[in-house]
Amino acid sequence: MISSAETPLPGLFVAFEGGDGAGKSTQARILADSLRAAGHEVLLTREPGGTPIGEKLRGLVLEHGHGEVGARTEALIFAASRAAHVEQSIRPALERGGVVVTDRYIGSSIVYQGVGRGLGADAVRDLNVWATDGLWPDLTVLLDVDEAEGRSRRTAGDAAEDRLESEPDEFHRDVRAAFLELAETRPGAYLVLDARQEPGELAEAILSAVTSALEARSAAVRAHPGRVEARP
Amino acid sequence: MISSAETPLPGLFVAFEGGDGAGKSTQARILADSLRAAGHEVLLTREPGGTPIGEKLRGLVLEHGHGEVGARTEALIFAASRAAHVEQSIRPALERGGVVVTDRYIGSSIVYQGVGRGLGADAVRDLNVWATDGLWPDLTVLLDVDEAEGRSRRTAGDAAEDRLESEPDEFHRDVRAAFLELAETRPGAYLVLDARQEPGELAEAILSAVTSALEARSAAVRAHPGRVEARP
Repeated sequence: MISSAETPLPGLFVAFEGGDGAGKSTQARILADSLRAAGHEVLLTREPGGTPIGEKLRGLVLEHGHGEVGARTEALIFAASRAAHVEQSIRPALERGGVVVTDRYIGSSIVYQGVGRGLGADAVRDLNVWATDGLWPDLTVLLDVDEAEGRSRRTAGDAAEDRLESEPDEFHRDVRAAFLELAETRPGAYLVLDARQEPGELAEAILSAVTSALEARSAAVRAHPGRVEARP
Repeated sequence: MISSAETPLPGLFVAFEGGDGAGKSTQARILADSLRAAGHEVLLTREPGGTPIGEKLRGLVLEHGHGEVGARTEALIFAASRAAHVEQSIRPALERGGVVVTDRYIGSSIVYQGVGRGLGADAVRDLNVWATDGLWPDLTVLLDVDEAEGRSRRTAGDAAEDRLESEPDEFHRDVRAAFLELAETRPGAYLVLDARQEPGELAEAILSAVTSALEARSAAVRAHPGRVEARP
């Protein structure tokens, strides 16, 4: 595991990952609402984007067609967007002791650019470790959805499909397998849920895991005032 | 030396490096004109930029103020711009056997982001080796100019100074030292010239070195038809 080179931060960092149509943004919103109701400072955000410059970078990738933006260029643009996101939003919120809930993070880049686009998982992970100065989530919630289910959810939404969403089923199958493999490599920091469950059940399981993580963090702070346990 | 993982390309790749006000763009243009007059296919280009998406990325960095774009974000945006530049313009031109003349390349990133902004020369070099898939220039022309001379040249131009150009003298002194150190590390691939020489003298020295490099390349192609010597 690679952990931050800097002093661990007092807040809690939660990332949602998974294929398109898994319900990540819905669950991220529900979690943020629940935590706010419980009195926590919460930053609800998403990637790519999350900052003014990040939104512009995201727009650049989406507006240019598939042939025009190469895989390396795309991965670097997403890494740049993430670097700004961590530096300007995520890290300051964690330093204030807040909870950060993000819809997608490094896992999505490893899966979509590293595996999906063939750049290699290790190369994309290394790139993003540098971009974020080694900031990993305390907990990653993987909403696992098979490719047929994901397709029907995307189609039902009737929204204009962006570049990644218009890929064939095989692509989404590889993406799913890659997300599951990532979760297996770092089991302690992952909560893997079947996205076909009822939204209310999912929300309950997620809140329970996040509450436990928050309690563990508080206990660590009480046990070692002035410092926080290094992340797994 | 890191050389391309792919088959060496038949064209010749020349980069101009040096501080602001050294005369890089003037000399790059003169060289391109001379080579075209001699019958070569020449791509004259610049960084950051060089492609439609690269120009937009360059614009993003310039339009956002210093405090808004962190050093890592900036380095990643420049690396993304370079990846597009290599993939869409430079590599195709070299594959056709053309001469590519670029105003700035990886050396500028190592110096400005790695040394100037404190990200570390090795980290920025590694990032750019990945972005370009290991494509280094066959010859880098370093136009060396001391910081006082550079300042008077920039001021004389009366152009609105961009972010890097508005840095204090100390910054430009460090930049100069870093460019010279880079050249010492790779002496065979560098031509270092005192930028205070007359433009005509500089142009002659540069054309002479590029002509020699072109002859060496042709000899290598004749000696090994179907393949070209790996780059130094």
